[in-house]
Order: sequence, then C-alpha cells, then structure tokens
Amino acid sequence: MKTVELLKQVQKGEISIEEAERLLGRAPFEELGFAKLDTHRQVRNGFKEVIFCEGKQDEYLKDIYKRMVEETAEAFGTRASEHQYEIVRSVLPQVKYDPVSRILKVEQEERNPVGLVAVCTAGTSDIPVAEEAAQTAEYFGASVERIYDVGVSGLHRLLSRLDRIQAANCVVAVAGMEGALASVIGGLVQNPVVAVPTSVGYGASFGGVSALLTMLNSCANGVATVNIDNGFGAGYLATQINRLAVEKDSGKGQ
Amino acid sequence: MKTVELLKQVQKGEISIEEAERLLGRAPFEELGFAKLDTHRQVRNGFKEVIFCEGKQDEYLKDIYKRMVEETAEAFGTRASEHQYEIVRSVLPQVKYDPVSRILKVEQEERNPVGLVAVCTAGTSDIPVAEEAAQTAEYFGASVERIYDVGVSGLHRLLSRLDRIQAANCVVAVAGMEGALASVIGGLVQNPVVAVPTSVGYGASFGGVSALLTMLNSCANGVATVNIDNGFGAGYLATQINRLAVEKDSGKGQ
Amino acid sequence: MKTVELLKQVQKGEISIEEAERLLGRAPFEELGFAKLDTHRQVRNGFKEVIFCEGKQDEYLKDIYKRMVEETAEAFGTRASEHQYEIVRSVLPQVKYDPVSRILKVEQEERNPVGLVAVCTAGTSDIPVAEEAAQTAEYFGASVERIYDVGVSGLHRLLSRLDRIQAANCVVAVAGMEGALASVIGGLVQNPVVAVPTSVGYGASFGGVSALLTMLNSCANGVATVNIDNGFGAGYLATQINRLAVEKDSGKGQ
Amino acid sequence: MKTVELLKQVQKGEISIEEAERLLGRAPFEELGFAKLDTHRQVRNGFKEVIFCEGKQDEYLKDIYKRMVEETAEAFGTRASEHQYEIVRSVLPQVKYDPVSRILKVEQEERNPVGLVAVCTAGTSDIPVAEEAAQTAEYFGASVERIYDVGVSGLHRLLSRLDRIQAANCVVAVAGMEGALASVIGGLVQNPVVAVPTSVGYGASFGGVSALLTMLNSCANGVATVNIDNGFGAGYLATQINRLAVEKDSGKGQ
Amino acid sequence: MKTVELLKQVQKGEISIEEAERLLGRAPFEELGFAKLDTHRQVRNGFKEVIFCEGKQDEYLKDIYKRMVEETAEAFGTRASEHQYEIVRSVLPQVKYDPVSRILKVEQEERNPVGLVAVCTAGTSDIPVAEEAAQTAEYFGASVERIYDVGVSGLHRLLSRLDRIQAANCVVAVAGMEGALASVIGGLVQNPVVAVPTSVGYGASFGGVSALLTMLNSCANGVATVNIDNGFGAGYLATQINRLAVEKDSGKGQ
Amino acid sequence: MKTVELLKQVQKGEISIEEAERLLGRAPFEELGFAKLDTHRQVRNGFKEVIFCEGKQDEYLKDIYKRMVEETAEAFGTRASEHQYEIVRSVLPQVKYDPVSRILKVEQEERNPVGLVAVCTAGTSDIPVAEEAAQTAEYFGASVERIYDVGVSGLHRLLSRLDRIQAANCVVAVAGMEGALASVIGGLVQNPVVAVPTSVGYGASFGGVSALLTMLNSCANGVATVNIDNGFGAGYLATQINRLAVEKDSGKGQ
Amino acid sequence: MKTVELLKQVQKGEISIEEAERLLGRAPFEELGFAKLDTHRQVRNGFKEVIFCEGKQDEYLKDIYKRMVEETAEAFGTRASEHQYEIVRSVLPQVKYDPVSRILKVEQEERNPVGLVAVCTAGTSDIPVAEEAAQTAEYFGASVERIYDVGVSGLHRLLSRLDRIQAANCVVAVAGMEGALASVIGGLVQNPVVAVPTSVGYGASFGGVSALLTMLNSCANGVATVNIDNGFGAGYLATQINRLAVEKDSGKGQ
Amino acid sequence: MKTVELLKQVQKGEISIEEAERLLGRAPFEELGFAKLDTHRQVRNGFKEVIFCEGKQDEYLKDIYKRMVEETAEAFGTRASEHQYEIVRSVLPQVKYDPVSRILKVEQEERNPVGLVAVCTAGTSDIPVAEEAAQTAEYFGASVERIYDVGVSGLHRLLSRLDRIQAANCVVAVAGMEGALASVIGGLVQNPVVAVPTSVGYGASFGGVSALLTMLNSCANGVATVNIDNGFGAGYLATQINRLAVEKDSGKGQ
Repeated sequence: MKTVELLKQVQKGEISIEEAERLLGRAPFEELGFAKLDTHRQVRNGFKEVIFCEGKQDEYLKDIYKRMVEETAEAFGTRASEHQYEIVRSVLPQVKYDPVSRILKVEQEERNPVGLVAVCTAGTSDIPVAEEAAQTAEYFGASVERIYDVGVSGLHRLLSRLDRIQAANCVVAVAGMEGALASVIGGLVQNPVVAVPTSVGYGASFGGVSALLTMLNSCANGVATVNIDNGFGAGYLATQINRLAVEKDSGKGQ
Repeated sequence: MKTVELLKQVQKGEISIEEAERLLGRAPFEELGFAKLDTHRQVRNGFKEVIFCEGKQDEYLKDIYKRMVEETAEAFGTRASEHQYEIVRSVLPQVKYDPVSRILKVEQEERNPVGLVAVCTAGTSDIPVAEEAAQTAEYFGASVERIYDVGVSGLHRLLSRLDRIQAANCVVAVAGMEGALASVIGGLVQNPVVAVPTSVGYGASFGGVSALLTMLNSCANGVATVNIDNGFGAGYLATQINRLAVEKDSGKGQ
Repeated sequence: MKTVELLKQVQKGEISIEEAERLLGRAPFEELGFAKLDTHRQVRNGFKEVIFCEGKQDEYLKDIYKRMVEETAEAFGTRASEHQYEIVRSVLPQVKYDPVSRILKVEQEERNPVGLVAVCTAGTSDIPVAEEAAQTAEYFGASVERIYDVGVSGLHRLLSRLDRIQAANCVVAVAGMEGALASVIGGLVQNPVVAVPTSVGYGASFGGVSALLTMLNSCANGVATVNIDNGFGAGYLATQINRLAVEKDSGKGQ
Repeated sequence: MKTVELLKQVQKGEISIEEAERLLGRAPFEELGFAKLDTHRQVRNGFKEVIFCEGKQDEYLKDIYKRMVEETAEAFGTRASEHQYEIVRSVLPQVKYDPVSRILKVEQEERNPVGLVAVCTAGTSDIPVAEEAAQTAEYFGASVERIYDVGVSGLHRLLSRLDRIQAANCVVAVAGMEGALASVIGGLVQNPVVAVPTSVGYGASFGGVSALLTMLNSCANGVATVNIDNGFGAGYLATQINRLAVEKDSGKGQ
Repeated sequence: MKTVELLKQVQKGEISIEEAERLLGRAPFEELGFAKLDTHRQVRNGFKEVIFCEGKQDEYLKDIYKRMVEETAEAFGTRASEHQYEIVRSVLPQVKYDPVSRILKVEQEERNPVGLVAVCTAGTSDIPVAEEAAQTAEYFGASVERIYDVGVSGLHRLLSRLDRIQAANCVVAVAGMEGALASVIGGLVQNPVVAVPTSVGYGASFGGVSALLTMLNSCANGVATVNIDNGFGAGYLATQINRLAVEKDSGKGQ
Repeated sequence: MKTVELLKQVQKGEISIEEAERLLGRAPFEELGFAKLDTHRQVRNGFKEVIFCEGKQDEYLKDIYKRMVEETAEAFGTRASEHQYEIVRSVLPQVKYDPVSRILKVEQEERNPVGLVAVCTAGTSDIPVAEEAAQTAEYFGASVERIYDVGVSGLHRLLSRLDRIQAANCVVAVAGMEGALASVIGGLVQNPVVAVPTSVGYGASFGGVSALLTMLNSCANGVATVNIDNGFGAGYLATQINRLAVEKDSGKGQ
Repeated sequence: MKTVELLKQVQKGEISIEEAERLLGRAPFEELGFAKLDTHRQVRNGFKEVIFCEGKQDEYLKDIYKRMVEETAEAFGTRASEHQYEIVRSVLPQVKYDPVSRILKVEQEERNPVGLVAVCTAGTSDIPVAEEAAQTAEYFGASVERIYDVGVSGLHRLLSRLDRIQAANCVVAVAGMEGALASVIGGLVQNPVVAVPTSVGYGASFGGVSALLTMLNSCANGVATVNIDNGFGAGYLATQINRLAVEKDSGKGQ
Repeated sequence: MKTVELLKQVQKGEISIEEAERLLGRAPFEELGFAKLDTHRQVRNGFKEVIFCEGKQDEYLKDIYKRMVEETAEAFGTRASEHQYEIVRSVLPQVKYDPVSRILKVEQEERNPVGLVAVCTAGTSDIPVAEEAAQTAEYFGASVERIYDVGVSGLHRLLSRLDRIQAANCVVAVAGMEGALASVIGGLVQNPVVAVPTSVGYGASFGGVSALLTMLNSCANGVATVNIDNGFGAGYLATQINRLAVEKDSGKGQ
C-alpha cells in the first residue's frame, strides 16, 4: 500500500490512527523498498545499472542480461569472459563483446556524447583497464579522448598531447609499475584527475600496490584514486564529473 | 611580473628580446634558492598556492608567508602548529589560526561562496580532518555544509541529513576505524564522493589503513579516495568538481 | 576399557587398586584418549565432529566418512570437491553434496530446528560462504533465515528485512570487498553479530584482508570476526549462541 | 511533529494528503531522528551508551559526562586518562577511576549480576585489557570470574581452573605475544570464546598482529575475535551472549 | 584427594561409581595441578624462573624479586630499566644491574661454566642484545665467548676469529640491518647457529623485519631464528644445546 | 701448488721471497678453494651434501645424482617431483622416492640411528613437512619418533604422548593455521624445540605467516623457528642437536 | 615557434599580447616537444630501445620486431616466451632465442666489448636472472664475466674468484633467498655493486621481498638495488657505469 | 709476524716447514687480519672510513673521532646530533657540524673536486637527506650541483635545470611522498640515477615505503635505489661512479 493511499484511508476514517502509525512506523523501509528506491535511484543518477560479470554463473548471467534488455533495451557488463559472451549471445544475438576491455553490452545507437574525458595510460599494457574506463564513460554519455602510452619515462610523448589533456573536464590516469603518471598530469591540469593503478608490473610492484601508493601519495593536488585495475570505477566517476561540468548547475546548493 | 606585463614591455621596447626570453625561460616559477614558487600554476589552475607548514623551519615559514601576502594579499597554510602561528603572527599580525583544522591563513573578506560541497564525518574524532577539507573548500570559494558524526553504526543520523547530502555537487566522506561511511553515502547520492580515511582508530586500524582499504574497495560506484588524513586534498578536489558544476561549460571538449 | 567399567572392577575386587591406579595414572591422557575424550567432548558440546575435507587424500576421506556413519549414523564435511563427493558416494550412496556450500553430508531426517540465526550477505558472490554458515547452523539444530544481497550500497534492501534480522539470536554477516555490512547491522540489532570476511573482491581487497580489517575495526558494538571465508566457523559459533538463548540457563554460574 | 499528530491532522482535514505525503516522504529519517531512534536503541539493547574517552577534548568530555549522569544517573567511559579523571571529577565528584582498566564511571549500587562470564589472560601484562572486558561485563550486569596468568607455556595453571572456565556462558580469552590461549581454551569448552589479541609483546609481535592472526586462524571451533586491545568490545559481546543464556528465549524466531 | 584414595573408597563402597567417575573425569587436570607440574618442570629443566621486567609495576616487581631471592637465593630479570634497578635495590641492596644488557640480577658466586657458546655480533649497535644472550647463557652455566663487530662487510674480521666460533657447541649470531651474519657463520661451522635479528637499522629495515627475513631464508643449513631483539631467548636455547653437548647422553631415547 | 710445497721451494731457494709472498697473498682464498674447503667441511660437519631438487633442470639433476652416487655411494634430495623421480631413475634404478615427503634418495642400508628426535604435527595436513624433517634426521643418523595430529585444540592427544616427547634430545614441532603447538610443547619439555610453520591453513593464515609469527613470539622458552614449510632445515638442525647430545663433548671449549 | 621568434613578433606588433600570452602559457612544453626531445634522447643515450615482450600481443610484437630491424638492423627483447619466439621467427628467421635468459634478439656480429662487468649469482637457480643481466650488458657493448654459484654459505667459492670480481668496473650481484651476496661482495670491492634480488626461495622469502630488504639494508657501502628479478635493469645500469669508466670523461662537469 | 718475515725464517731454516705451514694455515685470516686488510681496503677504495654516529655512546664517539683525526687528520661522521657535536667539540675544537645534513666532520682544506654529481630533490623537506648525499660526495672529492625542489607536480622547474642534470656523471634523485622524480629524471638522462626514497610524507606513505616502491618499479632504465633516507649511501655510490668516469680506465678488464 502506498503512502498516499494509506493517508486517504486515514482521512476517510477507514483505518485507525494507531494502525496507520504502526504501518508507517515500519513503512519507511518497506515503503522505500526495492522497487521504489530503485526508481528513485534511476531518476537521481541517470545511470543504468551495470553488471559485474566476473564469477557470475552462466544461467544467472543469461537471465540478468535478458531481463535488462527487456526492461531497458540495453545492458552493460564488465569483466566478462569469452565464454560468458557465448552464453549471453545464445539468447541475445545482438550482444557485443570487446576482448580488450572485456565489456559485454547491448547498446542502442543514439549516443550523443558531451563534454570531454581524457583517458591516459603510461604504457600499452595498461590499455585493457583504460578501455574499461573509456567505454564505461562513453556508454554513460561522455565524449572520450584516448591518449595512450605516455608514461613519464618519455615526457615528450605526454607533453605533445597536453592540449587535449588540459581541455578535459576530468582526466583518467591509468598506470602500473611506479604509477607516476597521475602526479605528472596532476601538475599540468586544472580539473580533477582520477588515478587508476594497474596490476601491470613485476617484482616489487606487488600486483598494483606500488602504483596505488604512488597515486595516494601524489605530490600534485586534485588527484583521487580508485581501486587497482578498477577501470569501470574511474570511468563512472569521470562521467559524474563530466556531467556536472556540462549540465548547468540548478543552484540547488543555495 | 606577470607574463602579460612582460609582453607589454616587449611591445613597448622597454625590455630587450634577449632579456624577455631569459625571463620567460625561467618564468614558470621563481627561483628562491631552496624553494621554487610556482607562478605559472597561478595562471593555469585558478588556485593560489598552498603552504604545507608541517616540518618547515621557522625562518623559512615566516619568509614564505610574508612574500605570499605581499604578492597575493592572502596566504593559506595547512598542518600548522601553535608555535608556527606565533612565529608567523610576529610578522603578520592579521594571520588567523584554527587549532582544530590547523589551518593558518591571511584571508581577505570578500569570499562569495558558490555551489555546494557536503563534508560528512563518521565520528567526532574525524572532525579535524573534515575541517581541513571544509575550510580548504571555503577558501577556494565553495559553499560548504558540515554534517558531522553520522557514522554507519547509527544510520538514522545519516538518513536525517540526506537532503543536504544529496544536494551537494560533491560529498567529502571522512571516516576512520572501519571507514564504511563512504560506501553508504555512495549508495545514496548521484554526485561524486571523495573519501578521506583518517588515522582515527586503534588496534588493527593500522593508522588508517583499514579505512583506506575499505574506501578503495567500496561496493558503491562513484567513490574515489585520497590519502589518509588528507583533508586538504579532498577539499581541493571537491572544489574542482564544485567549480565545474557551477561554471558554465565552455564547450572546450567539442 | 571405560572408566566406569574399571571402577566396577575395582568395586568388585576384580582388579587391584595398584593396577587400577597404574591404569588411571597413565590414563589421564591415554584413558581420556581419542575414544574417551571424544565422548566427553560429545557430552559437553552436543556437537558431532566435523570433517574438513580440503586436502584430505581419497582413501583417508572414504574411511573417515564410513567410520563416522557407522558410529553416529551421520557425517558432516566442509570444503569438499566434486571429486571427493564421487569418492565418498562409492561407499556411502546416501551421501549428499551441495556444490555451492561444498558441504558433503549424511544426515538423518529428524532435525527440529530451534531459535533463530540470520545469515546475511552483502552480495551474491558471498553466498557460497554464507551457505556454509547456514547449513552448518542447520545441521547443528538452529533455525536459519537467509537474507542475501543486502549490501550497504543499497541500504533499502537491508532495511526492508530488518524485522527478521532483529529477531535473530545471532546474526552472521558475510561480506567481501569493503565488508561494511557487519558495522551497519551491528548498529541495528541487539544480539551478537558474527562477521565473516570473504575473499570476494579485486585489486586492493587482498583476498579478504580489506573486509577483515573493516570488521575488526567496526564502529558498532557487539561484532566479532572469524577468519576469511570461514563460513563453518561462523555457523558453529552462531549455533553455540543460539543454543544458549534457547536452552534455559541451568544457573551453573552461581 | 510526531507521526501520530500528523495523522490526526490528516484525519481532521487540517492538512492535505499531498502535504502529509510530502512530510512523511522525508519523515522516515527525520522523524526517526536522533532522539527517537535513540530510545528505540535503548529499548532494544538494554545497553546504555558508552563513552570512548581517548582523544576527547576536556570541555567536551565534561559535558558528556554531566549530561549522561543527569539523564541516566550513570555514566561509563573507557580509555580515560588520569587527566580526564581530574577533569570529570571537578564537576562530578562521585566519579570513580580505575587506572588499570582506565574505566571512568559513575555507577549506582544496585547491580545484581547474572550468569557467568570467564575472563582469562595469558600473562600479567594482559590484565589491563582483561579488566576493561571484565568491568564492562560487570557494568552491564554479568557475573564475571577473573582467571589470570594461565598462558599455554604452563598448561597446569590453565587446567587447574578448568571447572570455572567450562561453567561460563562465554569465555573472554585475552592474550598477546603468540596468542595461543584462545585455541587451547576453545578446545576445552562448549560455549563461545571471544578472543582479544593484545599489543603485549616485542619484536615480531607487531603490536598485536601476531596474536590477532593466531586467533583468527584458531584450529579450535567456537572462537571469534575482536580488535587488538579491544577489551570493551569483548566484554560487551560476552554480555550479549550471557544475557541470551540467562533470559528465557521468547521464541521470537518461530 | 589422590587417585589411590578414591579407588580405595570405591573398593570399600564409600563412594558411588557415578561419583567416582565424575571426580575422575575432572581429575586428570586437577591431579596434574599447580604444585605437581611445577616441581616436574623444576626437575625437568634445571632452569630457574626468569623475570621479564619490562612493563611490570614497581610494587609487583619488588615483591617478585624479594620472594625469588628468599626461595632460591638468586633472581634473574631481563629488560629492566634504571628506575626498576632503584626500586629493587631499595629492598635487595645486593642486586646488580648492567645498563647495556638491561639485566637485573642477584647471583651467588659459585658458577662453574661448562662447554662453549659463541656470541657474535655484526656491529657494535647489536651488543646490547648480544649481552642479554651472553649473560643469560652465563647465568645458566655456559661458558661464553664474545666475538663482536664481525659483520659481513668486512669478512676478515670474522675469519680471524673462526677458530673459536668453530669450537663452540652453539653459536648465537646477532645482527640487524641486513642480518647476513647468520648465513655466513652457518656456512662455516658444524654446530647449530641461533640467529637473533635486531631492530638496529633504518629505512626499510622495518624494526628488524629485514634481518628476521634474512635469517629465516638463510641459504646455510643449521640456522634457527628467534624473535627480533630476543637475546634472552637465544641465550636460553644456546644453553639448552650446550648442556646437551656437555652432559653425557643417558640413552633415554633407546 | 700446495702451501707445503711452496714452503719447500722457499727453503730450497727455488722461489724468491717476493714471489712466495705474492702467491700466498692471493693464496688464502685459492688455497682454501673449492676442493680443499670441501674436505674441511666434510670432516667438520659429518653431513653429506643435500640436493634441493625443486626447479633444477632435468639434465642437471641427473648429472648431480650420478656424480653424488659415484663419489659417496649415496644421494639425498628434497622437494623432488614425480617427474624428477622418473628422470633420475633412468640412470640410477636403485633410487627411491617418497611422494609424501618428496625425498628422492639413494641410501645404503647400514644406518645405526642414535639419540632421539621427536617430530610432532598439529594436524594431518602438516605430515608432508614433518616427514621431510623426520626422514632428513633419519638419513643423517638420528633415531626419530613420529607423533602426529596432536594439535592444541585437543590437548589430551598431545598429553598422552608426553613421555616420548620429553625424552627427545630435540623436538620438531610442525604446525600450520595458528601454530600454537610449539608454545605448548615448549612449556612441557626441557630440550630445544625447533618450530616449523607450515603453509597449511586458509584465509588470514597468509601461506604460513600466521604460524610463523606465532612461533617467533612463543611465550615458552627454548623455541627457535625455521622457514615456512622448511622440514629439511628443522630435521638438519635437530640432527645437529641430537648429535651433540649423543657424542661425548671433547672439552673443546675449555 | 621558438620563444625568441614569438617575442620578435610581439615587438613588431605582428601578434597580439593576448595571443602571445596564450601561446607562452603552453609553450614551455611544446618547445620541448616530441621530435626534439626524441632526437636528444637518441643522441644522448647511445642505447637502442629495448622491447619488454611479456604480455605483448602476437601481432603487436611481430610488428615491433620487424620495424626495429628495418630501422636499426637489430632488435633486443626481454621476457620473451617460446611462443613469442615462434611468432617473431615467422617474419624474422634470423632471430635468436635463449630459453634461459628469455632474451629474443636480432644482433649484428661486430660487437667489440669493452671494460668489465662481473655478474655473480648466489645459486644456480639465480642464473636466468643473471643471464638477462649479462646478455643485456653484452648487447650494449660491455665485456662480461660470469661468476655463478658463489653464495655466502660457502665463502671459499666466492673468495676463489675475487680477482676478477675486484677487477670489474661494476659488479652485478644476483641472489634470492636471504640475498646476503651483495653485502659480502660490497665489502670486498671498490666499484659499485648493483644488487638484484630474485624470487628464488620459499616460505618467508615472499617472492623476493626477503632478498630485496637484505640488499636495501646492506651494511656494506656502494650497493644499489633494482627490482626483484630485474636482470635487464641491472645489466643496463652496469653498462652505463662501465661505459663511464671506459670512455674518457669529457670534463663536462667543469 | 708478517708473511714476508715468516718466509725469510723458512729460507734461513729458522723455522720448520711444518710449523710454517701450520702458521700459514691459520694465517689466511689472522694474517689478513684487521690492520692488513684495512690497508688493502684503504688502497683499494680511496675512501676513508666513515662514522655512523647515531646511537653511539658519548665516550666511544669521542675516542673514535680523536683516533681518526690522529691517524688520518680528518674524520667524517653521519647522523650526528647536536649533543654529539658538543661532545666531540670538547676534544676536537676544529670539528664542524651541519644541523641540516647532520654531518659532523674534521676536514682539511685542499679538496679539488672533479667530475659532476647532480643532487636533485622533489621538495624542500627532502633537503636534509639530499645534503647528506651532496656533502658525502663532496667529502670524497666529487664536484656537486644541488638542484632542489624540482618535484614532478611542476615539471617546468625540473626542465629548466635539465642541462646541468644531463651533464652529470651520476644523478642522485631524492624524493618522498610518491617518489616519481627518479622515473622522470631517468627518462631524461644518459648516466645512472641513484634514487633515494625519503620518509617525507604522511598517511599511506608509510615512512618512505611508497617512494621506495615507486623507485624500485621505475619504468625508466638506469635507476637504482638505496635505502629510505640513506643519503650517505647514495652520495658514496655517486662518488664511485663519478670517479670511474673521471679516472682513465686502466684496462683492467682486458
């Protein structure tokens, strides 16, 4: 029973105040339950739900994709395997899979990208994580510029692309090994840098911990860090920031 | 001397091309011997330089504050001690010190705050870090709402302030111990959450590592993390995001 | 020879005091050895022995299950593989295997579950560990309610099930990634919360360490933690607590 | 405005349904705000709020103690310093301080302890943490038996007190260094063991990490762990378990 | 009641079999109780008890020393402070304190040292730990040779003392920083090497962890490791080994 | 040229003093070179060289075994795989392989074991490491008693075998998970305990680190630790200690 | 456009001050841009680019090798797999692969090695890393002496080769396990030692961390460390040092 | 007795060959003992011994400085405190102390610096470590250029000094926080870079570990790392490299 109906019943005397109070006392959570808050979230975020494919069982994954496409005409999943692609394709022939980013999606054509997100990598091995970020941002409507292989051991490569990096509303800096890219970019731009450490490296890189610490300790201002290899998280955050830059502020903070 | 003025002197013939070239060659910063003042950054970021006071020697700190105020009429430093306040006050009587945030500043009155940044803490012990974030954001022009002591062990406190949290262009979530606040807020808002782990806690909190890992591994989307106790970094980043939201996008990405 | 029989022989004079003393003198440990102390433990705990299958050799496992069933008519093992299921089934056709919880058991039908243990998970990937906990608790006689996928990034899901969670004598909170579920539940219930970190996650989750630290540092009272992925341990502990709540206290502490 | 009054206004037509719905839509959390949920928690837990003194500023602490005593006639704080004792005593002369457990409390006389909680330590250096646990349990109404200095390097000391340990509804095992006490006790009792690692030790004990890992990896069943040196947490949890054992189960799980 | 008496009562019918069984069920541990096992240990070890002074309260320490000297005419404590020396000296004027090893002892004169234990250090900063080891071994009756400052960066120093090192029944190798001394000695001697990592070092020595790992991973055979800075433990172990070498084997293993 | 021959040449005037001095100046190391020191070590240790098979290439391993058997009639290798067994058997049909301990050896029959080494394990999963220790000790001439599955969660099992454990000249305590076995045994025996942490465990056992820390921090005296899973190292050390106990001390330390 | 030309245009009024200011704001980096810095580096280093093969996709790798050989007649790659060898050989039949060092190269014959680099290993398992170092140094023109299996547990082996080690301009010390080799060599030579920790070891060697810490904490002077298993990095650095020693200093520092 | 004298006695028949052999048999190490090898090292290294002052006792330090000055007319110590300066000055009034680098030295005037070592820092807080490196290099004869506060967050500062950095035979890169300076410099120069992580930073910099990992994982070639804050080690190594570059290679490797 919705709140409005309950109130009408109170108004009409069809329900006692004690009973209404009891229902409302428990309502907050039941009433703001699954379906309802879902819509709220939908409205609030403008972000459709994303499927984290890794570790999901075949049957379960197939069902989720089918239902997502039925309800929203689209579906977007990360960390999918070739095998999962085959599974989902058996029920959704239109699904597309990118083996680099490991994104598995059903997408309608009419994206009209806005703003600018720059996605940079230190090396070529960081590209899979960067593609996860870039394609996530594109899926959610951002215009993305890819600037790959601009690690700090060859500064000229980075500097030659500086115009576009400085133009972006948000820069995603993807780097493994020593992860210094984020600091250097942070010192060159005015907008936020989202740093993504990758597990690329060997020896004492400890699966990305070295790059993670580098980014957390960045001597440049305006750098925030997401989890190791979390391209999706960076792409999502960059989209949020880009959207804020593009949409006119409605003065809500006043 | 600003670049524009130097160029005018060149145009007027008041300075030789050789001299101008020499100045511009060094221009991006002023060589002060053991420090280099980043004047270029001024132009680039729109953010005045900030002084990290901790560990700076007395004489050095005094000089920096004096010159900053002479050049820009203001000065803003973080992690200052009571002793450093006394030192700087001896040459700049107008300097103000907040023992909670440990911010030591000379500020002109005409701030006109814009947008909205919400700064939340899990407990009362996280307030010093939160104040560093809040006052940083205020110094750089953001309107800030403080929402303290809303840790997840008492959800009702957080939920009662949800309106303002959801209205912010950026939420700064400051928490020690298990640091779960960022995840919970991340699930409730549409705009970016900047998570700040604090070193508040004991036992296996390991000086903030527990909260740091919690925040990096957040199951909610749209959460990025800065270094332990790095309130300044979070306030700076929140201001960048808030500024993007407030200023009309000039379509530079097109 | 059991102690009671030895005593009867002493009473009847069938054995000398010296001989009895010698037997008992070495007995403490030999006599309270495997079989005997087993009974003692049996009486004391009301918990039948459990088999940790992982890493056990085929022949050894087959023997243990056979002997367990011969002696107690039941057998309960954790962390069993499909292969081990085949091995044991070759001698005990009645054995049952659940590939999710990886529990391999021979169970008699007459369970009469008592009390209430709530087993909650943050996500669907935590379910295997949760099932190990739930089925352990059920095997040892507790009534279990499963409340899955109620992670903190969508609070409404958790709040909508609050009634049952609050009704439980003990809540088992199973979560990977940032593991914040235990803290949030801890703030909402009056009875103990047993927190189980899982190795679900990636990047800086470090195989469950992030969730483990979160749980150990919980800002909520009444939360205790077991080892990463240790569903059995949590189910066992929850049963102990549930049993205390259900059985009338015999005033032994007076 | 309380829900009941709002409903009455609806019934009387003093407020429109739209307005009531709007208020209730925001109400769940505002209405379940600080004071209200507080009572709820009070009723639910039977545990009065506890003050974590460490790091609290003098004025703040003094106010909290005063208000607590005014409202509930009692106050119970942990991790208090000698200095804080002086501060609080200046406004509450009846406050009592125990320098070993560092508990600072105002307590009324009529405790009637029930059940049994056994608090064991491995060594004498673990006693401060154990006392925090024991006095917490006593404050919340449990009968406590202290069994100190029974570390595993001298098993006889532990075995000589086994009767009382086995009689307890919950055993708190407090140990630093290698922390083996919890495992040994876990193998000897039928009820839950709450393990508290302490920071006692040197060298590679790493401030309690060694004991913490030992306890998490306990080969005995029925052992759960709290944070390093977290005597309060263990005492609180033990009281919850003891209370469940003493109070007759109201069959709420059925 | 002793087992034999209980059995007599059973024989005489003075006690029921049920009662006897109950008593015996608990007996194993009561019978092996405090006094008894204590004597056993005394006899078994030939090592008098040692006092770990660090962290002990003044009154407590004074009592322990007094009682130890009353009972055994001697007392041996480690990790004592200057202050603790003053405290104990106030009641035992004959007590002696060595500020290097921090050993505080009352010793009778008639030691007749046997065998040979060599105590080596890498540098001069390792000497306090080495002295704790050496004086412990001497107190328990071993003949000790000190060979200090023979670190591997100057092999000639070590090689020039090789005769004595090779003659020892056990070598204690004390080293901080990179801790390579134990490996080098292990490759040159036939008898066991007890390696003691020290917290001497800086940077990435991590309070002795670097040396600890070096010693655990020694490529030489016959090296065992004790805790960081645990000179006492090494001295004790070396004495055990030296005693085995000196005393004729009584063929107990046959 | 040997030293004695060089000296003869000097005596006879066949070589100048300058030339002899130059040769001797370099000689120390050349003269104490491979062959020579090898014999020295042989004589000194009484331990034949042992082959660490893991990671050795097939051809290389085959050659080593062949040469070892040719020279010494025996060969003893650890950490061998089934595949390596096949490789070596192709040239040495008499080689024997134990898949549990992974020891691959050619042994002559006439061992006459002396003394007593007790090898204990906490659980059955620790047996492979224990067998490596036991068979190493046996190969080098020690009499070994295996006492397996006596972990501290069931103290009676350990206590029932106490006689033999106390009779040993050295006890090897092998345990994974929480590794408490070494501390408990250390409190019960008079001779040295060599503790071997194993990588058995899950969750926060971190591949043996938990047990390693437990053993290093043992509250019992007389416990030394070797590397994780290093059964060979423990067996070797135990043999050294056992040999010291059995052989009459030649008074070399006097 | 160079700064000087831009300034001339300003002086002549050919460009507005606004435009000049905009260009200068970006200039510092454009002027140090791609082509320019590239040539600089080429000239400066005399080191051809090296290909890190690990993780590179087949097509990409094939292209890189082809283009490298076309442009420079040579190609040098590290961490190549057998599979990658086959791939590259299909287009470059002259390519050579060494399965030990995993180096895949096309090399012209006319190397004329200069100076001396000594590459030492502690054990035979360290040889693959050592070969990567040695062959890198040889490829870049250094004369290399291999001195393998000279670990510190048998000092005589190391000392017997001391002449050549002391003659080298740079020593590369490659060691796993406890990594003490670098310290011992550092104490015996006058020129720099580049220490390479390897992941050889087991138990608490933690994939090379133990050796890494040992090397960083070396008590000998003149030791610098590269990443775990980074033979290439050590070989490269040794070549730089060797080249400095061989080439006459051009007095550039004056 | 020196080797030459012993040989003369042999020649003269004053000593038997057996006796001479015995003496030489032990001699290698005694004869190559302290004094002798010392000279060898002296000759070999050209580096006078350095005193690590930290932790040295007053009397001991005073003696060392006195003896050093008596023997070599100079003395050079690192990590000295103000207090130690006073102590040494009491006996050596000519001693000089620099509170920044904490170097305490007696130096003769005639240094004639050669070559070029560049010492760079990321920030001003890294200067104490950099000064230790610079003054060490100067003491041992290198010409040093200090280039401070050129961290990567403001690349223009670094690039403006590139000429001198590239001219150096060796660059010492000193940085805390994220330590990216070494990678960036490594990509810009042809000669070796010695990276020194400093403990400057906060939060997750973990006392220099973050910078250390960054440097070890540098994506630039030609970077080697020394211990955290080890300015002395870097200065020493840079001097070794600089000396090789300056001195003509004597072709010893041929």
